[in-house]
Amino acid sequence: MSFKIDALDRLVEHLSRLPGLGEKTAQRLAFHILKTKDEAISQLSQALVDVKAQVHDCPVCFNYTDRELCAVCDDANRDGHLLCVVEDAGDILRIEAAMSFKGRYHVLQGVLSPLDGVGPDQIRLVELLNRVENEGVREVVLALDADLEGDATSLYLTKTLKGRVGDIKVTRIAHGVPIGGNLEYVDHRTLSRALENRVEL
Amino acid sequence: MSFKIDALDRLVEHLSRLPGLGEKTAQRLAFHILKTKDEAISQLSQALVDVKAQVHDCPVCFNYTDRELCAVCDDANRDGHLLCVVEDAGDILRIEAAMSFKGRYHVLQGVLSPLDGVGPDQIRLVELLNRVENEGVREVVLALDADLEGDATSLYLTKTLKGRVGDIKVTRIAHGVPIGGNLEYVDHRTLSRALENRVEL
Repeated sequence: MSFKIDALDRLVEHLSRLPGLGEKTAQRLAFHILKTKDEAISQLSQALVDVKAQVHDCPVCFNYTDRELCAVCDDANRDGHLLCVVEDAGDILRIEAAMSFKGRYHVLQGVLSPLDGVGPDQIRLVELLNRVENEGVREVVLALDADLEGDATSLYLTKTLKGRVGDIKVTRIAHGVPIGGNLEYVDHRTLSRALENRVEL
Repeated sequence: MSFKIDALDRLVEHLSRLPGLGEKTAQRLAFHILKTKDEAISQLSQALVDVKAQVHDCPVCFNYTDRELCAVCDDANRDGHLLCVVEDAGDILRIEAAMSFKGRYHVLQGVLSPLDGVGPDQIRLVELLNRVENEGVREVVLALDADLEGDATSLYLTKTLKGRVGDIKVTRIAHGVPIGGNLEYVDHRTLSRALENRVEL
């Protein structure tokens, strides 16, 4: 549906390209924006420009940062022997929010997905191998999603890491029944993984 | 959750002020924006500025426009005897999409809501009365929401219009069971209204 008002049509088009926003939501947002004070919208507009201008990848771990190194790489108190591998920078925030990991991170910026044309050269694998070899890493913790691509990437990384660095320890975060989770509502693949990875008490 | 990256925190804050976007969605959008090409984001940023600079209220009917008059007011083929009253400009688009109304519109920019401090002076009532008196309007079609405020506003407008212009016809769009709607899923107030407004065949 076109509003026949160029600026409005253009805004709806750009908004509806954002993930999770359909055309209806984009229209609703555009109308809200028309009703909102000019100043608030010019601040939002500026925030979009600023985030693209100021935020970039950390050259070491590929986390987001607005400085030379990201907050984790720049923190001398972090345990450099322990390296947690994640798919994207957002995962770092989720793990940091759990406040139980004191090592460093490495963002792959993707997972292997042959069907989508994502092979080992399209993710930050060379950089990972270099870091493991040069930074004295003793254990790599794989924290990838528990789906097909995540599992395949974990397997590939394990083989490649062990092939390159003989005595490296590679672990994977535990998959199982969520804390507070009711067995009744847990799918059978999760339950099967939880049984397989049972822990002795 | 703060990312400790000023530009990113600021963007999430501004995004989460938009209606229907919680903090989590705002974070997800911000990460998507970081991954999107600079050019696309600068276009979105510009679209926000443009829409505020170029789009304003039509001085006659208070629809949105980027010209002197809105597309409907500027269209000489519209029936000036028929005036449809809506709550906001978005409603015009929805009615236009139905393509069955050929009259003109008047946007109230709100409905009466004493609890929220919205009285007759806070909506475009004076402008409506002036138009009805000066534009030769014969019928006013009220197309307000079928809720408490909408119904109260419809009642108030009917009394005020009839008090001011003796021979004006005031109608209200029909409320009833939606086309394709199953009686099983229609609430009892809608059903009661549909019975009350039954049409002879």
